[in-house]
Amino acid sequence: MELIFLGTGAGIPSRERNVSSVALRLTASKGTTWLFDCGEGTQHRILDSPVRLSKVERIFITHLHGDHIFGLPGVLGSRSFQGVTSPLTLYGPEGLGDFVEAALAASRTFLRYPLEFVKVEEGTVFECKGFRVIVGELEHGIPSFGYRIEEPDYPGELLVEALRREGVSPGPHFATLKKEGNITLSDGRILQGRDYLGPSLPGRKLALFGDTRPTSRGVELARDTDLLVHEATYAAGREDLAREHFHSTAIQAAETARDAGVKRLILTHVSTRYSKEEAQELVQQARRIFPKTVMAYDQAVFSVERQ
Amino acid sequence: MELIFLGTGAGIPSRERNVSSVALRLTASKGTTWLFDCGEGTQHRILDSPVRLSKVERIFITHLHGDHIFGLPGVLGSRSFQGVTSPLTLYGPEGLGDFVEAALAASRTFLRYPLEFVKVEEGTVFECKGFRVIVGELEHGIPSFGYRIEEPDYPGELLVEALRREGVSPGPHFATLKKEGNITLSDGRILQGRDYLGPSLPGRKLALFGDTRPTSRGVELARDTDLLVHEATYAAGREDLAREHFHSTAIQAAETARDAGVKRLILTHVSTRYSKEEAQELVQQARRIFPKTVMAYDQAVFSVERQ
Repeated sequence: MELIFLGTGAGIPSRERNVSSVALRLTASKGTTWLFDCGEGTQHRILDSPVRLSKVERIFITHLHGDHIFGLPGVLGSRSFQGVTSPLTLYGPEGLGDFVEAALAASRTFLRYPLEFVKVEEGTVFECKGFRVIVGELEHGIPSFGYRIEEPDYPGELLVEALRREGVSPGPHFATLKKEGNITLSDGRILQGRDYLGPSLPGRKLALFGDTRPTSRGVELARDTDLLVHEATYAAGREDLAREHFHSTAIQAAETARDAGVKRLILTHVSTRYSKEEAQELVQQARRIFPKTVMAYDQAVFSVERQ
Repeated sequence: MELIFLGTGAGIPSRERNVSSVALRLTASKGTTWLFDCGEGTQHRILDSPVRLSKVERIFITHLHGDHIFGLPGVLGSRSFQGVTSPLTLYGPEGLGDFVEAALAASRTFLRYPLEFVKVEEGTVFECKGFRVIVGELEHGIPSFGYRIEEPDYPGELLVEALRREGVSPGPHFATLKKEGNITLSDGRILQGRDYLGPSLPGRKLALFGDTRPTSRGVELARDTDLLVHEATYAAGREDLAREHFHSTAIQAAETARDAGVKRLILTHVSTRYSKEEAQELVQQARRIFPKTVMAYDQAVFSVERQ
């Protein structure tokens, strides 16, 4: 699993940071990709990334501000233009479908693939490819959501030595036991898979947030995740501006990460007012609160590891 | 007057050619700018161009295909985000307003400036800053228009020698006569400005077309212009594809330029199937029919001269 940041700026694009989008590539699933937000120019950034539109199966929208959705019609249309016919599901707040349908209708864009809309709201939970996705509402003046993604736990290792003691050798029986099935030995004994598996390994957990003020719901949603992607629109000291515009400072993002007990924090959605150098200061500010913080930049790729 | 090409590709963006947009900068009017079409990423291309959103007063849309309009919400929103309060007028086919309003409403984008919509159709004529704009319908399967822009004629030179013979010296009288006003001399004689002006100079004329098959209406609309901007989606020999998709080949664009008696032709809207080198072949093909042809590329600037 890896995150590929396609746009890491706030509000309007700059030469260095495009407006919001991040791709989650499920590398174990042949590159199947989920997009989170889709600001204008996302399809342009994709051209320079390892992401392929044909692999994008789901797009999750955190909120409907233009810098998070104006790239959607282009991504949807180009995916069809490229001849892709596999279905795509679009998750987002009420009103997302209306916008997309108005854009496709006005432009007479006929998609070659089925497009499904799923409305999300506080508490929505669904399963995608075995992953559990939990939706929490944040605080941004308009409905804005965070997505918590939980990979299924990995089954434990087969206890090979214990099986050998029972006289079972590697072979088809091993495969059955690994799937927690039962086997019948030649002497009539029945062995149950669950008795011969070590402890399961927890799947990876991550949380990607839409724009937000610091909020207790955010802390709860990100609880104990391996990775939190959080906005840091403003630098420390601009809590007034952050509050007024329903955003967070780098410090506030770090406080959320610390309070939620997450393992790693990636800052994104940085105001275009900050130069490249100033953006680095935001990371330093956050690290004083939460040391394992890094700053996203356009085309940055982060491996999602169990911490 | 100069044309700045912001996007010169067809259908979907490539690394080299963005989707359609071209800016007409009225250099004599302090950089006042009109945009023609506004594909996704236009505001990104503007960042690297001499165009300023604050100077964009009018946007003319040729047709509603996504590669010509999906950049509009972003341009409108960012112009407001930058604090611009001067009005903007949007010209385009029926349905344009619905798309823009759906995008602004969904994203809760409140513009700080007045936005006016003007619906265009075959034969629409209007005046903009003294310019005459004439709209002609082309042939693209959906309503697609060309815009013919006529600069007002320049008044002739003041006939200074003739005025000296009448005893009039340079001064305030000259200014009045130049504006075709009348002056009364100290001996009571009245001189009329129009009698002391040389022949007026014709203003520049140009035509910018939306996507189209070759059509007699196009030839008529471009008649005797100094400059025609025409699509060349396909290379010569692909007239079958061009016809099927309601586009033109480079040769067909050149034929329209020749038949209309235009002075200069700029090709744009080139299919992403063609490499940089192959696109140059399209120019060579066109030049066999119409020698004064050039190929647009992203960020190309062309001065619009009286030919």
